[in-house]
Amino acid sequence: MATEKISKRKIMLIGTGFVGMSFAYSLLSEKGIDELVLVDVNTDKAKGEEMDLSDGLVYAETKMKIRAGSYADAKDTNIVVLTAGIAQKPGQTRLELVKINAKITKDCCENLKANGFDGILICAGNPVDIMTYVAYKTSGLQKNHVFGSGDVLDTARLRFAISERLNVAPSNIHAYIMGEHGDSSFVSWANTYVGCKNLLEYLDEKGDVSLAELQELYIGVRDKAYKIIELKRATYYGIGLALKRIVTCVLNNERAILPVSSYQQGEYGQEGYYIGTPSIVGSNGVEEVIKLPMTDQDQELFDRSFITLRQTIKDELSDLLAEYE
Amino acid sequence: MATEKISKRKIMLIGTGFVGMSFAYSLLSEKGIDELVLVDVNTDKAKGEEMDLSDGLVYAETKMKIRAGSYADAKDTNIVVLTAGIAQKPGQTRLELVKINAKITKDCCENLKANGFDGILICAGNPVDIMTYVAYKTSGLQKNHVFGSGDVLDTARLRFAISERLNVAPSNIHAYIMGEHGDSSFVSWANTYVGCKNLLEYLDEKGDVSLAELQELYIGVRDKAYKIIELKRATYYGIGLALKRIVTCVLNNERAILPVSSYQQGEYGQEGYYIGTPSIVGSNGVEEVIKLPMTDQDQELFDRSFITLRQTIKDELSDLLAEYE
Amino acid sequence: MATEKISKRKIMLIGTGFVGMSFAYSLLSEKGIDELVLVDVNTDKAKGEEMDLSDGLVYAETKMKIRAGSYADAKDTNIVVLTAGIAQKPGQTRLELVKINAKITKDCCENLKANGFDGILICAGNPVDIMTYVAYKTSGLQKNHVFGSGDVLDTARLRFAISERLNVAPSNIHAYIMGEHGDSSFVSWANTYVGCKNLLEYLDEKGDVSLAELQELYIGVRDKAYKIIELKRATYYGIGLALKRIVTCVLNNERAILPVSSYQQGEYGQEGYYIGTPSIVGSNGVEEVIKLPMTDQDQELFDRSFITLRQTIKDELSDLLAEYE
Amino acid sequence: MATEKISKRKIMLIGTGFVGMSFAYSLLSEKGIDELVLVDVNTDKAKGEEMDLSDGLVYAETKMKIRAGSYADAKDTNIVVLTAGIAQKPGQTRLELVKINAKITKDCCENLKANGFDGILICAGNPVDIMTYVAYKTSGLQKNHVFGSGDVLDTARLRFAISERLNVAPSNIHAYIMGEHGDSSFVSWANTYVGCKNLLEYLDEKGDVSLAELQELYIGVRDKAYKIIELKRATYYGIGLALKRIVTCVLNNERAILPVSSYQQGEYGQEGYYIGTPSIVGSNGVEEVIKLPMTDQDQELFDRSFITLRQTIKDELSDLLAEYE
Repeated sequence: MATEKISKRKIMLIGTGFVGMSFAYSLLSEKGIDELVLVDVNTDKAKGEEMDLSDGLVYAETKMKIRAGSYADAKDTNIVVLTAGIAQKPGQTRLELVKINAKITKDCCENLKANGFDGILICAGNPVDIMTYVAYKTSGLQKNHVFGSGDVLDTARLRFAISERLNVAPSNIHAYIMGEHGDSSFVSWANTYVGCKNLLEYLDEKGDVSLAELQELYIGVRDKAYKIIELKRATYYGIGLALKRIVTCVLNNERAILPVSSYQQGEYGQEGYYIGTPSIVGSNGVEEVIKLPMTDQDQELFDRSFITLRQTIKDELSDLLAEYE
Repeated sequence: MATEKISKRKIMLIGTGFVGMSFAYSLLSEKGIDELVLVDVNTDKAKGEEMDLSDGLVYAETKMKIRAGSYADAKDTNIVVLTAGIAQKPGQTRLELVKINAKITKDCCENLKANGFDGILICAGNPVDIMTYVAYKTSGLQKNHVFGSGDVLDTARLRFAISERLNVAPSNIHAYIMGEHGDSSFVSWANTYVGCKNLLEYLDEKGDVSLAELQELYIGVRDKAYKIIELKRATYYGIGLALKRIVTCVLNNERAILPVSSYQQGEYGQEGYYIGTPSIVGSNGVEEVIKLPMTDQDQELFDRSFITLRQTIKDELSDLLAEYE
Repeated sequence: MATEKISKRKIMLIGTGFVGMSFAYSLLSEKGIDELVLVDVNTDKAKGEEMDLSDGLVYAETKMKIRAGSYADAKDTNIVVLTAGIAQKPGQTRLELVKINAKITKDCCENLKANGFDGILICAGNPVDIMTYVAYKTSGLQKNHVFGSGDVLDTARLRFAISERLNVAPSNIHAYIMGEHGDSSFVSWANTYVGCKNLLEYLDEKGDVSLAELQELYIGVRDKAYKIIELKRATYYGIGLALKRIVTCVLNNERAILPVSSYQQGEYGQEGYYIGTPSIVGSNGVEEVIKLPMTDQDQELFDRSFITLRQTIKDELSDLLAEYE
Repeated sequence: MATEKISKRKIMLIGTGFVGMSFAYSLLSEKGIDELVLVDVNTDKAKGEEMDLSDGLVYAETKMKIRAGSYADAKDTNIVVLTAGIAQKPGQTRLELVKINAKITKDCCENLKANGFDGILICAGNPVDIMTYVAYKTSGLQKNHVFGSGDVLDTARLRFAISERLNVAPSNIHAYIMGEHGDSSFVSWANTYVGCKNLLEYLDEKGDVSLAELQELYIGVRDKAYKIIELKRATYYGIGLALKRIVTCVLNNERAILPVSSYQQGEYGQEGYYIGTPSIVGSNGVEEVIKLPMTDQDQELFDRSFITLRQTIKDELSDLLAEYE
């Protein structure tokens, strides 16, 4: 009864590992959220995070309630951010990882469905494009109400790297990393801009930076996670803020263009699965996939990336998802 | 349909004069509001303000929609801020002003009621304690769902003045101006603190600031509006931010203590009318009036202030409100 | 002595009319500024504004000191925002306005120089491109340390209008209004983008919005000030936030691209005067003018706009500026 | 040269463990800081943190530069936050911990001194009151330019707990935990307030909450770190935001009252060492220790806490600090 005169906004985080908690911690500087529910199979962990995070509330800008909860909270939740899953272990193959995390994702989504969740579901578990597909299939939600963090962090890294190199604000570097969040991603360089100027023309005029050098920057970005993990064992702050960016976009119905993992319906010649493409994100999830003109080479890279994802799903997850096909 | 997955928050401003618009402009740095509706009898003015204010949106932190509207928007509005009313003109008596503004307030509130408004109503028209009573009587809302800006601005001014004098952050000056927002207001000095230290003891220890000097500061605060009007003809920025403070308190269900104009139910020995008293403000409006221990002198000042308000209402507004008694 | 351990940032506003004060009021939600000095020939007005604005500090996010001051404060000021000048009066020709405001601008800048000002000077008086030239000539500052608000507000209006029409976030509408801030400005449509997609191609694909319709939006934007003035007599909130955007860009050395009024050195084939062109803005003022490829028609529009400005300066201000040539 | 027109603000974090990095991450939502330098004996770790944290910049509110650095950066640094130190290991006595961390603190401070550091030094290593004394002795800085995080987090926890119990905003709960940050801390209940009302009187009136229950809340707060560590192994988000609060207080010269670990000069009857007491914090560090009236029992608790700290320093650190006495 206490808050009945004001519409409430409730966010649920599933998975209280460092990625999820870095996202949660970043929400302490965000206004307009009433409640944050932390869900984890390790309920002690979720309770501990509630306690640690709540200690920051007195000095934070937000007034939200933070509490460890359960799927029973899903019914009136507006946005779920799903970070549950395990990290790749030494000796474990990537395909083994896919199976394990797909199982975890499926369990979470079935729990959400069973508890009447009917909001927006954002996946951040890895491999994210595949997990997003699993979440779509098993949550019972519409295609556009489920999407993945996709290449949002990769793109931020790229824009930051170009920004540093050209000494122009990252807000004026317009470029997207597309395709699978991972080794088969790519930059469509023909579609990159500095302000309203084509990036390649800008480089030509400047004369001191080559496209080859920028492609090197991209390689550095693509492999940055490995490098960070080598240096500090894990990476979570960057993805934490990327998730905050996606969530505020939905929460405020911004309709901003973000390279999230979106369900494909032929916009880039492929369909039926999720992959990173620039998409308009608003309070209904993915509202539109933006079609950029692809060079032949870009299209080939995209197709290869998409087909890899599709094949992995078919090969590895057909049993797990059998009941949903 | 576009925003159905996220609960919306809608604020209506009635009266687009400088006070109202300074409040509206300040909302551009606030997140968590979806829509701001501007209502004015001068619909051209409201439209012009919509256009001018919207120009700021591209560089603002909020993503809210701003638009000129009408009472038809009241039904799903969460909070109404009522600043309609005229300013005192030369040759016009204060009592004439009361009658005119009470009529305006009544019209606005009857319009809100006719359009099914069922949210929180915050009055800022002057004399504010009387207008809040009129709003309560004519809006059909519950006592605690209607309240006035009261002494919130006066208190901010006092805290700022003491802060400057003592060189301590205003957030650590705990003091309230109480009573009528106007000439009969007062400070209950016995109930003032610096951090957790009684202010009078702090002055004693310091030795270089007397209570008499602080009382002078209060007099300056009480008369500050006159001084500002003399220098720049009107005052609106301070009240603009005070209104923003009150609104965010309701919006986020903060349950902070603010000296708003609250309906009295004997907390200070008086009842049945609105007057400035420290009150817990949350998403249900005034949730509780905080009872401070009054010295005999404080109580006498409070009673006199209350009785003046009550008598003015009885003498001047009994006709206007006859149908509601 | 009190703040010696932390470097201070001081901003001076010259001219406390509605434009200047809307800018000043917007700074109350900005952190990282230590002092705001208000200067006006009408010292009562400046004092009144100090008092009204300071009342908001208790509930504001900033901790800055606000005070009415004088040119004597210029020496250690980091940024001056110059909004002094008169508005066009009925019966007054535009050329008369130029002469009067140029005289005011000159006086202000000579005062700044006499007091050792050596920071960044941002002009917002109208006609802004001409006033910026006057400020450059009479302040003794370097070319890039002086610039004008130019088309920053116009561009925000355009991006907002396109954003509303296409239902895409304004942060993803990349377009600049260029040329004189006024009737001879233009949009280089070939250089406009939605995300990383050319706007004209986007319209083609959508099919339901024509370029002609967007050009109509631009006409509406160009004439929006007249429309707002007709409805509410003056326009100040939009420009207030545009000035805040420019100032924070300098303050944080963002190096963002803004269509400010920049000194031309042949980037668009013209030189020696100020005009609105996309420019990288950082803590050294205008760091670079971005060269967009111009169609023949765009170039013609740009040349015409530039020549008009240059001719006005030569015809009307040669006497005033004689000593500086 | 690039930023010469705007005064720069530079912060150095020494120690990039979870406490330090949670503080650093929280700065991404803070404006007005130009540079954050990360220093760690493990330079790989510092580099990894630079990379992970920088990834968030594109979506953050700050524009600061983040980079791994060294003590060579100390000269023009405004504020150093020192979180270096080890956590207590199983089988390790508390006194062993003191010696190890004191040695680390000493090394850091001698490095700062050798590199000409002359700003504000904030200690957060544990046991914090003792480490702050070591930092003061070995850094060559003035008493008030060095202080510790003290009971700032403990006090936030207490205010939050009381706030939840009484259902009043934490910003209106005025109470301090005093004494050693640790087991011998205490609450001076006689000096606690809700708004401007004495907390004990408020409880009396309410009737449903006893002081005994609040004392239980305090016990929970005092032992909260143990509880969180039990649940999630470590605690860092709360202290991260507490450190941010302290730093912004210095940065903006707020002169707010915070229960930091301050050098005692007889305000509470003791002198020569650091301990948590309510203190005015501004751009010169601790500007004043606020004297609250102590009951006999409070005074006894304070004395005992102080003497424990002093004795530990004398017993365990006299060798380490011999050259500085």
